[in-house]
Amino acid sequence: MSVTKVVIVGLGNIGQGVLSARSLFPDIEVTGIFSRRAAEIGQSVDGVRVYALNKGTSLEDFDADVAILCGGSRTDLPEWGPRLARNINTVDSFDTHDHVGPWNDSAGNLQIGYLAEMHEAASHNGFLADVGIGWDPGLFSNRRAEFTACLGKETKVYAFYGLTARGGLSMGHSDAIRRVKHVADARSYTHARPEAIELVRSGANPHLSHGEMHWRECFVAVEPWAVYEDVQQAIVSMPNYFAPYETKVHFVDRSVIYADHQEQYHDGLVLAVSDVGLMEYRNVWHSNPQATARIMLATARAVERMNDDGRTGAITALDIPAKFLCADMGQAVSLV
Amino acid sequence: MSVTKVVIVGLGNIGQGVLSARSLFPDIEVTGIFSRRAAEIGQSVDGVRVYALNKGTSLEDFDADVAILCGGSRTDLPEWGPRLARNINTVDSFDTHDHVGPWNDSAGNLQIGYLAEMHEAASHNGFLADVGIGWDPGLFSNRRAEFTACLGKETKVYAFYGLTARGGLSMGHSDAIRRVKHVADARSYTHARPEAIELVRSGANPHLSHGEMHWRECFVAVEPWAVYEDVQQAIVSMPNYFAPYETKVHFVDRSVIYADHQEQYHDGLVLAVSDVGLMEYRNVWHSNPQATARIMLATARAVERMNDDGRTGAITALDIPAKFLCADMGQAVSLV
Repeated sequence: MSVTKVVIVGLGNIGQGVLSARSLFPDIEVTGIFSRRAAEIGQSVDGVRVYALNKGTSLEDFDADVAILCGGSRTDLPEWGPRLARNINTVDSFDTHDHVGPWNDSAGNLQIGYLAEMHEAASHNGFLADVGIGWDPGLFSNRRAEFTACLGKETKVYAFYGLTARGGLSMGHSDAIRRVKHVADARSYTHARPEAIELVRSGANPHLSHGEMHWRECFVAVEPWAVYEDVQQAIVSMPNYFAPYETKVHFVDRSVIYADHQEQYHDGLVLAVSDVGLMEYRNVWHSNPQATARIMLATARAVERMNDDGRTGAITALDIPAKFLCADMGQAVSLV
Repeated sequence: MSVTKVVIVGLGNIGQGVLSARSLFPDIEVTGIFSRRAAEIGQSVDGVRVYALNKGTSLEDFDADVAILCGGSRTDLPEWGPRLARNINTVDSFDTHDHVGPWNDSAGNLQIGYLAEMHEAASHNGFLADVGIGWDPGLFSNRRAEFTACLGKETKVYAFYGLTARGGLSMGHSDAIRRVKHVADARSYTHARPEAIELVRSGANPHLSHGEMHWRECFVAVEPWAVYEDVQQAIVSMPNYFAPYETKVHFVDRSVIYADHQEQYHDGLVLAVSDVGLMEYRNVWHSNPQATARIMLATARAVERMNDDGRTGAITALDIPAKFLCADMGQAVSLV
């Protein structure tokens, strides 16, 4: 079994997830961590040395085959990604779906999108960048392609999130609430509407609005001088985030969030139905960042192998054959 | 959108499924049918001309990019496959899992396996043969690889069949019963044991015998002089097919099989659980052969494109990126 050497860039939840999963991926060696946190730099975390991540970091000549970019999609990856991809193969979990391909910014200017930016950067010195890896985008993207391709042109593919009783924690929506005036802390959960899932499973191929598919549940701790009604109104009327959905707001003490809302569970279902039948893929994660980290680790194998085979530029999950994810490709035929 | 020209080899249930799915695959054109049935040869079926399929058929110079081999795995594909793959790209649904890779025959001789035979044949003139395409092997094979790769080395992947109340029709087991003395007709259904699925979902990663995962239900019509007890005993004691399972035998009139058991529905679930969570893929088919036909049609696109890109020899579903299955690869980024 060949060994893939990876470096972790960004030691947040996903970076920690990569570190903690190592015993399950014995063919992958973590040779370094790059972090912006001054207190960690020069230290060793779980036996791995931490280096400074700053605007000069290039990873040129660093002893690794693949950099796992564990940063956020809003500011980290657009800054790190194209710079690092010039000197090393990369895997990232860029998850702003609308900005993967070309998009129009608020001024109406066409942006080439993250995939094209990474393609230009990675192509420069012959590296491979795999963009948008995790469960969605990532595994779900593959299912969307496969379900549409196999069921034929009239097939609609649906995705639901938060099918379990507790729902799925949405970090982006939690952050949005925390930006509301007088909010001290918050968690937002997405819940799927079971009746919408059953309608899809029935084969109706319905048109469903966002609000018909999901509702949102928020646990909000406010400062003592907050007016509950004002905070509630500010949340439920927030465009895109909450306005299109039925939203339940629970005001709770900060200690409740600390005690009961630290787990980052999430789950989702992607499904499609045609006259010939139904296809569906589901995952349920106790820890969303740990799950994402493991999918990225498996993908690091693929990126190294595909680059060894001469593939350069930027790709997505849709470009990766399942065999390349496997620890031992020689044994893959036994999985057929 | 580019057009993929395919030829259907063998006009059984799967071949008919290819023909009937054409409106859903407007980028695929069926340019011919090759059949062994004398009555069909020279005729036109659904607007497609039928040619003779015999030991001399080579498809050299036939106007098609890909041959969809719609034959059985026991005798058809081992005979047609290596011969046709010398002169055209192929997709087949070879489903004898143990014979895809190397295997030992009953005399103890090592056989190279169907994949290696097809690889030798297809490589000869630079064609690509995609072996074992359908939902299992095929989609399920990909899930086995992906789930194991992402969840880590200690993960067990389980597959269950026949989760719906009616169960899943097994053609192989039905055929086996029809070979029993005094049996006029028969259908055998596979049923999953829900309690075994729940045990797997709980994360127990249990060791489960064949009989702990599934049971079988048979509908059997016998000749008037048959002794029910003898037929029943012959069925339930059949090694591999029924002996390892709890098997319920219903003796019915032949008219019942004709009236109530013509639909080839089947369904299955592949799943794996680790400390980080659960991954599962499920499909439910009203018609197993029609579903298989559609998956093969989508795969025909991939095989043509990969061969155009220079890929030759034999591959399996594990080698195909999801993007290559799509009707319009240029739109694939919108699925990410």
